[in-house]
Amino acid sequence: MKAEAVESGEASTIIATPKRGLNRGISIADLILRGFAAIGTFGSAMTMGTTNETLAIFTQPLIRARYNDLPSLTFFVIANSIVCGYLVLSIPLSIFHFIRSEAKITRIILLIFDTAMVELLTAAASAATVVVYLAHKGNASANWLAICQQFDNFCERISGSLLGSFASITMMTLIIFASAVALSWN
Amino acid sequence: MKAEAVESGEASTIIATPKRGLNRGISIADLILRGFAAIGTFGSAMTMGTTNETLAIFTQPLIRARYNDLPSLTFFVIANSIVCGYLVLSIPLSIFHFIRSEAKITRIILLIFDTAMVELLTAAASAATVVVYLAHKGNASANWLAICQQFDNFCERISGSLLGSFASITMMTLIIFASAVALSWN
Repeated sequence: MKAEAVESGEASTIIATPKRGLNRGISIADLILRGFAAIGTFGSAMTMGTTNETLAIFTQPLIRARYNDLPSLTFFVIANSIVCGYLVLSIPLSIFHFIRSEAKITRIILLIFDTAMVELLTAAASAATVVVYLAHKGNASANWLAICQQFDNFCERISGSLLGSFASITMMTLIIFASAVALSWN
Repeated sequence: MKAEAVESGEASTIIATPKRGLNRGISIADLILRGFAAIGTFGSAMTMGTTNETLAIFTQPLIRARYNDLPSLTFFVIANSIVCGYLVLSIPLSIFHFIRSEAKITRIILLIFDTAMVELLTAAASAATVVVYLAHKGNASANWLAICQQFDNFCERISGSLLGSFASITMMTLIIFASAVALSWN
């Protein structure tokens, strides 16, 4: 029964609409990448946002290191949250593209927003990376000392949180490439 | 299916001329934006790359502030140079799109490279902005002191050089949007 359906149905549909099949494949890839990118940004925002280390030193009052001590890390948390929210909201549109693979205007709109969001995420990840780098290595010329000897746990957390963001940037870039190919086929 | 093909064929011949006209308009805008973006990145790279301030203080040997004292600023100069080179090299392809407005594969290739390059430029501009901000304001929590009181001219130059880069990012984003629209029309 199934084989019959395949024999009678598959041949005609594949020859008739090869583009639709490829576009559907792209839509599935888009959906999966979007999901993983959302998880990546969520993980990054959470890891960075919950970072908190308190040092008890006898001679000084309590010293606490938190992400919002550094504007770049605050920007990182906000940008990752915005991009995560956008990615989740864009999933229904991605499903719509799977169902109606010939859609054009919505694809253009999504590509425009994807581009803007990947730029926001790149800016945030890059800004946070600079601060993480300075925290680890410092800079002798500017006389900025590394703070990671003191705040060991804090530094590990903020370094780790960059990973999710960079993975998401890669996935969103692939989504943009796939959208461009899908647009040209339509 | 056949009827559909005939229909779309007829429609395309009727709409062909205005579409071609619009695509040519987009190609001209693409060319102009690409030119200005190249100038912006060139200006940024040159301004940052030639920054050099020497302070003569009696008690210390000569103190010199240069862009390559800070890795982020070095990255900024390199990234701006790469993007400027890419933009200049991509101008012939942009002219080709003006002549053959129905070209698809070259448009996709250009869109993919444009996306990668705008991400590189965003990362570089963002990294440099963090360093410029720290140079101006410092950070009390990390005990990083502002260095702009001493290196006044240096700070003015590095702040100014960011402008060209951010203008170029805006123009390259518009190029990507235009490419997406042109791709969907073809």
